[in-house]
Amino acid sequence: MHQRRLGSERVDKINVGLIGLGTVGSGVAKMLLSRGEFLARRAGVGLALKKVLVAHPRRVRPVRIDPRFVTGNPAALLEDPEIQVVLELMGGIHPAKELVLKAMKNGKSVVTANKALLAHDGAELFRAASRAGVDLYFEASVAGGIPIIKSLREGLIGNDVEVLYGILNGTTNFILTEMYRGGDGRSFKSALEEAQSRGYAERNPSLDIKGIDTAHKLSILTLLSFGKAVRPDQIYVEGIEEITANDVRYAHDFGYAIKLLGIAKRDGDQLEVRVHPTLLPNNHLLSSVSGVHNAVFVKGDLIGELVIYGQGAGKLPTTSAVIADLIDVARNIKYKSPQRVPPPLAHPRIRRVRRVGEIEGRYYFRFSCIDRPGVLARIARILGKHRISIASVVQKDRRREHIVPVVMMTHDAKERDVEAAFDEIDRLSTVRRKSVFIRMERG
Amino acid sequence: MHQRRLGSERVDKINVGLIGLGTVGSGVAKMLLSRGEFLARRAGVGLALKKVLVAHPRRVRPVRIDPRFVTGNPAALLEDPEIQVVLELMGGIHPAKELVLKAMKNGKSVVTANKALLAHDGAELFRAASRAGVDLYFEASVAGGIPIIKSLREGLIGNDVEVLYGILNGTTNFILTEMYRGGDGRSFKSALEEAQSRGYAERNPSLDIKGIDTAHKLSILTLLSFGKAVRPDQIYVEGIEEITANDVRYAHDFGYAIKLLGIAKRDGDQLEVRVHPTLLPNNHLLSSVSGVHNAVFVKGDLIGELVIYGQGAGKLPTTSAVIADLIDVARNIKYKSPQRVPPPLAHPRIRRVRRVGEIEGRYYFRFSCIDRPGVLARIARILGKHRISIASVVQKDRRREHIVPVVMMTHDAKERDVEAAFDEIDRLSTVRRKSVFIRMERG
Repeated sequence: MHQRRLGSERVDKINVGLIGLGTVGSGVAKMLLSRGEFLARRAGVGLALKKVLVAHPRRVRPVRIDPRFVTGNPAALLEDPEIQVVLELMGGIHPAKELVLKAMKNGKSVVTANKALLAHDGAELFRAASRAGVDLYFEASVAGGIPIIKSLREGLIGNDVEVLYGILNGTTNFILTEMYRGGDGRSFKSALEEAQSRGYAERNPSLDIKGIDTAHKLSILTLLSFGKAVRPDQIYVEGIEEITANDVRYAHDFGYAIKLLGIAKRDGDQLEVRVHPTLLPNNHLLSSVSGVHNAVFVKGDLIGELVIYGQGAGKLPTTSAVIADLIDVARNIKYKSPQRVPPPLAHPRIRRVRRVGEIEGRYYFRFSCIDRPGVLARIARILGKHRISIASVVQKDRRREHIVPVVMMTHDAKERDVEAAFDEIDRLSTVRRKSVFIRMERG
Repeated sequence: MHQRRLGSERVDKINVGLIGLGTVGSGVAKMLLSRGEFLARRAGVGLALKKVLVAHPRRVRPVRIDPRFVTGNPAALLEDPEIQVVLELMGGIHPAKELVLKAMKNGKSVVTANKALLAHDGAELFRAASRAGVDLYFEASVAGGIPIIKSLREGLIGNDVEVLYGILNGTTNFILTEMYRGGDGRSFKSALEEAQSRGYAERNPSLDIKGIDTAHKLSILTLLSFGKAVRPDQIYVEGIEEITANDVRYAHDFGYAIKLLGIAKRDGDQLEVRVHPTLLPNNHLLSSVSGVHNAVFVKGDLIGELVIYGQGAGKLPTTSAVIADLIDVARNIKYKSPQRVPPPLAHPRIRRVRRVGEIEGRYYFRFSCIDRPGVLARIARILGKHRISIASVVQKDRRREHIVPVVMMTHDAKERDVEAAFDEIDRLSTVRRKSVFIRMERG
């Protein structure tokens, strides 16, 4: 499509090795093969796909690649002195980590889309890249093609980031959107099945719905925004399995949408890093993000509020991010400027990560109580004792002596006070199911 | 605030000359003076503010600068061999253009926030930068601190951009937001006065409300997205002065918001570039962009839809963009890689810019007719004759024999057909005011 003669100017060619020919790998290979000259002109540097490493070299692939370029032997790629950049698009932590470390040790820069690897071992990989004097780029690891990594590392470099939060997982956002759609109150289970039937959710969806995938991506964004390496297992994570269609509807009645957010914010010398369902006001841009889309909200001291929205996954958006990284890295090779963008710098003020009990904010509460005079008064008294003040309360579906939901929105409260109050409330004989709270972001 | 010892690693220092100490200039100067060491560590390169050129060196400034650094003599800055980067933050086309060209000729890279200069003379300046082997960066020229330039030039480099449109002027977006607010139908004039009293609009607001400022920014974004230099005077531009509170309300009743958009899109070998009030469906992210905010929507063949939203103006957001550019340019100097990101490449397929009469889309119509049987039928017949089919029609405020508005939404129609139909309709004796059409984007 973009057939043009190459001009007379000299265009350096960078040799690329690709690991993995799955969805993203084959998308990237196809781009390099079909749009190579156009990319070279635009980028000011040529890109030649020299070798592809796959587990099963003879398998039939969705992209036509000369079989002489395909190998099942890692050394054939990692020890090839002509290969200057390795694209790691196989996924998973092992053996991806060993291959990436070996490539860097051999002087090759690396572009990866591997969020699990970066979330678990990002700090180690950055150190290895520094030691070897090569680059490690990873735009595709978070939010598909959305240029959030580049924006944080370069576009916002002058800012002191105060808050970052995002809808970082398309599957859960699709499910939450379906649970509301038209207010008809679809159950979590039915919405999950819809996501599975459309191919948005895995057969085993737990990485997504339990918030673990979001935690991986949040870990990467936290390192970039605050220079703090927080491993996924150090992040407080709550999934969306407990959210009911009623919660989605009640929240909407109060003027809020429920979204699964990954949140990182600095308060003085403390950092909060957490993943959980969150109420966002309906006029917040992120509350309009529907279906499988992703969006990231960043607040910096100079830029104020910034939102970036787009497709968070998929072959082509991810390919877009890998190509952009590859061109960046190729330019760094051309100009002998590896580590041109240095690894993230630790924020000078952050001393520790705050425990979830220490956070403070507004809350949505749902209690399931026997509809009987005095029940609400008793709950309110317990909340008051724990310094939690109620902003509004709605008792849904009044039916004397039946179990009915009582829904509240609070003013600012401390999470440890909420926990203590809930312990006490859940012991009341008139409260018949575990009480539910969902945190809010003001936006 | 970010006081840290510099580490033992060597940090190259780049000497910076600043032209202009207005709002943005003083913001940038303050950042360089107060956050210099933190920036140097983060960026991997140091930045020293060496000289400041102003028209009135003795004037008292909002930022404290050693008077020995301040000069009123252009040569003192432009001929200083130690200055490697010039920040042009004075604005206006002359003498900014001459100073920028001279700086580049003298081997200095340039960072500018000057949208008028780039829109009028961008192609010439790019050529001068290439010739001199220096960089020209201009993130701050469009949409304040929003990293849209970097995203288009680098993050989306693998994409063939199909459509780009944006809310690029905060003043007009504030006015249109005010005209709707709560549906109480504030007039254009009253909303403009509100914008002026808040300092969002100039005493003479015509650059903003006539869409000229938007055209400047669109010209820059068009060059980056499509590699096509389209001067502002070649862009079809309509402002918001003719939009009434009723239009805003009727559009809302149909499920749309009215926004002033700068639009560039490619259709085969033709490019459309235009600025005008536009109806966007209420579920479109850009229709939720309120007040002085900016947002840009981009559709690329790989990335799909992308939206970036933020503060489109103001001292700190603009400072954020200038600092990011300055660090990019400083790294290019450090690594001797000027023109690391080459100037935009012409899209290989675009042959010409389409005239506005040739565009096709849906429309909002408002006719002011005498409320009398048969009037609607006559209008509908004329529209039908010109191949315009009506999707919905509402006759507001029925009052027999009075002038009442008739509002319609069309299916896809050609603009030249709309113009021909309106010529005919406006000659009807029952149509008492000039009929109004507003274009729609589907989103």
